[in-house]
Parts: sequence; C-alpha cells; structure tokens
Amino acid sequence: MQPSIHEPSLDDIRDAAARIAPYAHVTPVLHSRSLDALAGCELYFKAEQLQRIGAFKFRGASNAVFGLSQEQAARGVVTQSSGNHGAAIALACRLRGIAAHVVVPRSAPRIKLAAIADFGARIVPCEVAQADRDRVTAQVLAETGGELVHPFNDARVIAGQGTATLELLQQVPALDAVIAPVSGGGLLSGTALAAKGLRPEIAVYGAEPEQAADAYESLRQGRRITDMTPNTICDGLRAHLGPLPFAILGRHCEAMLLASEAEIVAAMRLLWERLKQVVEPSAAVPLAAILRHAARFRGQRVGVILSGGNVDLDALPWTPGVGTPP
Amino acid sequence: MQPSIHEPSLDDIRDAAARIAPYAHVTPVLHSRSLDALAGCELYFKAEQLQRIGAFKFRGASNAVFGLSQEQAARGVVTQSSGNHGAAIALACRLRGIAAHVVVPRSAPRIKLAAIADFGARIVPCEVAQADRDRVTAQVLAETGGELVHPFNDARVIAGQGTATLELLQQVPALDAVIAPVSGGGLLSGTALAAKGLRPEIAVYGAEPEQAADAYESLRQGRRITDMTPNTICDGLRAHLGPLPFAILGRHCEAMLLASEAEIVAAMRLLWERLKQVVEPSAAVPLAAILRHAARFRGQRVGVILSGGNVDLDALPWTPGVGTPP
Repeated sequence: MQPSIHEPSLDDIRDAAARIAPYAHVTPVLHSRSLDALAGCELYFKAEQLQRIGAFKFRGASNAVFGLSQEQAARGVVTQSSGNHGAAIALACRLRGIAAHVVVPRSAPRIKLAAIADFGARIVPCEVAQADRDRVTAQVLAETGGELVHPFNDARVIAGQGTATLELLQQVPALDAVIAPVSGGGLLSGTALAAKGLRPEIAVYGAEPEQAADAYESLRQGRRITDMTPNTICDGLRAHLGPLPFAILGRHCEAMLLASEAEIVAAMRLLWERLKQVVEPSAAVPLAAILRHAARFRGQRVGVILSGGNVDLDALPWTPGVGTPP
Repeated sequence: MQPSIHEPSLDDIRDAAARIAPYAHVTPVLHSRSLDALAGCELYFKAEQLQRIGAFKFRGASNAVFGLSQEQAARGVVTQSSGNHGAAIALACRLRGIAAHVVVPRSAPRIKLAAIADFGARIVPCEVAQADRDRVTAQVLAETGGELVHPFNDARVIAGQGTATLELLQQVPALDAVIAPVSGGGLLSGTALAAKGLRPEIAVYGAEPEQAADAYESLRQGRRITDMTPNTICDGLRAHLGPLPFAILGRHCEAMLLASEAEIVAAMRLLWERLKQVVEPSAAVPLAAILRHAARFRGQRVGVILSGGNVDLDALPWTPGVGTPP
C-alpha cells in the first residue's frame, strides 16, 4: 500500500477534530481512586472503548473518509485490515454514503468479518502472507480507482487519532505524561503530535508487549525492525511500526515501555474490576507498563489512552485454557 | 432490625444529594445507538457501576451515615448485609471516622467479606437463617448502642438512593420513563420518589427476575409476599420487598416487569458488548425487561438505572458450567 506520508501538524489535528465532530463521540475520561493508589500516580483514562465501533480507530478513518474531495469519494475507499480499522472505514464510508473495499485475510475471525460486513463494506478475501495482502489491495485499487486509507502510515489517519489526545488535554489540562499502546504507530504518533503541540513539557510514552517489541527495538537501534514475529495476546498490536510513525516517534517519544503477557492480562483484569470497563488486551498495555515502571510515574498526572473494547467474551484471557498467545 | 419508617420527600432527596456530594461520584449517563436500535426506544443508562464501591448502595449508606448527629455517630453504625450495602456502610463509616459493625452470614463469599473488611469494618458472623441474622444484629445493637442502618427499609437510605435519579433527570430532563431493578425496594422507591417528584408525568417501572418475583406478586395481590424462595443468578435481588418500599411502590410505580434468567444473562452480555460496561446480573434486569416488553417502551426516552458492577470475573454466567442459578 502506498501511504500518505507527510507529517501532520497540530492544525491538521484541530482540523480533524472539527471534521469528525458530527460523527465521532467525545469520549469521557475515567478515574479510579484504587488504581491511583496501586500505581502511585494519578491516572486519567481516555475511554476510547466508548468510541464508535468500540475503538479509537473511528477517529482516523472518519477523518480520512470525510476529508476526501467529492471526486475522490465517488471512487470509494480501499484498505486492508482484519480488525478495528476495517470496521471503522466501513462505518465512515457508510456515513458518507460511498463504497468501502476492505481486503481481509482468510484467517480473520468470523466475528470481525461480520462487523465489517454489517456496515455495508465489500470484503475482499486474500491469503495471510503480507505479499498477498498487498497484491490483492493493489488489484482492488487498480480496478476501482479508489482511495487507499492505510491503517497507520497515513497522515490523515494519524491526525484523526490525535484528536483523542486533543480532547483529553481539554478535559484534563495539566498532565505530566501521556501513554498509548503502539503497533503500527498511528495512535501513538497522533498522541505525541497533539500532546507535544499543546504542551511541549509533557512526556509521551509508548507501551508495547515484550513479545511484540519491534517499536522498542526500532527506536533503540535507530532503524525500523520489520522481521520480528509478534507472539502476543494483544491482537491489535501485531503490526510493525510504519515509516511515518517511526520518524514521528523518534522525535517526540520519551521512551517505549514494555510489559509481559502476564502483566498485560493482570492490568486488563484490573481495568475490568476497578474501572468496570470492558477493554481489549491491547488497551491494557499502558497500565501494565505504568505498573511495571512505577518509579518513573510516581506522583505524576498521567493520561492513559484506553484504545478499545472489542473482545471475545467467550475467550477471556483468564478463562482456563485461554490466554496463551497464538 | 427496626427500620426508620417515614416516607422521604423530594426535599429529603435533595438534602441527601447535598449531604453526599463531597463523597459520592456524579456518575455519567451512557448511550448506545445499537442498543437503541435493538430496543426500539432511546435508552439512557445511569452508570452506578461507576459509583464508589461499584454500586448505587454508597448513596443511601453515606446519606444515613453522614446524617447522624455527633452523638449517634460516636456509638457507630450497625447493619446486616453480605453484599454491596455492607461495603457501602463500611466505606461511609471509614470516611466519617466512626465504627461500623456488619453482620454477615457465614455463607458469604470470601471476596465480599474482604471488601467489607478492607474498609475497616468489624465483621460479625451469623448463621444463614434470617432469624439468626436478626438475633445477632439485635445483640450487636444492644452491646454497642449503635445506629441501625437497614439496607432498604429506611427512609434515609431510600432518600440517598433517590439521588441517582435526581442526577439522571438533571442530565437527561425529558424522560418518558425510568426503570430500576427491585429487591428489597430501596433503590426503586428512591427512584420513584425522585422521578415523580420532579416529573409527575413520568412512568416508573420496577424490573425483577421471574424467579424472584415477590415484589411483582406483592403489588399484584396488594399484600407483602415474604414466603417465596428466590432462585436467580442475580445475587443482589434475593431480598423480599420491605414494608416501607411496599407502601411507596404501591402508590408510585406503574408496573413490575419480569425477565427470565436467560433474558437477564443475554441483556448482561449486551451491556458488556455494546456499552463496554462490566455490570453485575442484577443491573441487567431492567434492559432484559425492556427488551421483553418492547411494545410498552416503543419510541420513548427511557432512563435505566445500572445498579452495580461487582461480579466475579472467574464465574461469568456465559462460562460453560456457570450460569445455573444456585
């Protein structure tokens, strides 16, 4: 997929917020005394599991879709995703009344396909290998003349994801730090650009599963690592860091903090028990990282992006027999 | 237990709101397009699972505890409860810095005892039979000279529970109906008094498990039925309607609506999947009743009290082998 590669500005993020305002929810910020006591700092959870489609992905997708010219829009939108981005593109295109073509590997769970199809998108199956995904995507682009909206390596998508942090800093202005999970890097890039743009003294952290630590390694080594095989329960965090996020995060991100699979599951359970929120494993990685690196956050006011809440209630990680990464 | 039996007024509820404001959370109202579509009406969920101790019970308990004179308070508070009311009394007493004595049957789950003990309350064990609970409670009252705060048959507690609906009608003024689960009737009584006081044209409904339908039968027969044996997954809804709630509900309640165990579990799952909220089975009974009696609510704006979110994540009702009522 050929991405849109210029780096978005704070104004781009403000424009995105205005563009998506008629469609996206302003999500609440949640707080828990008992989690604060446990972490030794003040945690402000930006509840993107309450965003439309149950994840922040709707912000970036709707910014891209509603930013298209009439002429572009008429040819439809193409993307590849078996997860929340696919559903987000499908819903945004339905709301704009244009065609969506989502390239999905045959291995994708039925339930995710159903979410995408329910919003009226055309599902184009492909094989699991990235080369085949790219081949089929190119085919659909050629055939339709549609607009590619990449899940993370796209300035419009990054600007859209940044609107969550724009809101968060309006809701809780005096944050010392903000932390978001990292996979392809779209959310964390938008988070960093919004946070640093509004409040240069803020520290921005990425949170990543130890067993999918390509962003950690990429920033450490100063080059993009794309040959690691992720082995994590976090189905939303298995992509490799994109080139545009890599460039943005290298400049704006304080550190990537890791957490083990067991720490992620424990943090997820804490969010269910104490915050009463259904969040997916990916959304629990920031809390897991904060608890592991508690000294770094002691006494601070920390914004935490809860990225989404789409989880299979029949296969929770603490159910006996579940919880081992695939 | 000898209850405080006068019926609270709207002013009592307003006083309660002012009294508990420094301690209780103003909980948000949640909304879901997909649940609205499913129900055929607009649902406004008052999120009491986000209240302190994870349930509405903190409102009534803190109103009673902070309403005591210095002299009364010095002798401590006595109650009997193995559930959320016990934890709520324990926390309210800790916040006021006074003693709490909670009479708890030996059968109570360890996790609930731990919640009560964590807030510093004295746990007084008793046998399961109601007669023994009452005997031990009377003993503790005699021994301490403490103040009895009954979980539901108490005007101070009812006024406190009513503050949830006071808030709800400030947050969403033009409701056609409001619905809350009923067990002993404290929450539903407070709901009815606040709703009818502020908005006489509103319809107030109780929601009750078919397999614990003593309130339904009591209102139908015009006399309090206290010899039914509840057989429901809703551990918060196994008490019999109290005399004071019985009197209040007979005047102010449109109807009691029933739901089966399977309908309750399905509604609970919907709240987890669509609203992303961890709610306990009791809190799902109103949605289950709305979906069963959909014609009655068609096109209306309906307030729904989500009563609490304290649930054992290792024994969810859709886990194989769980879900059969005890």
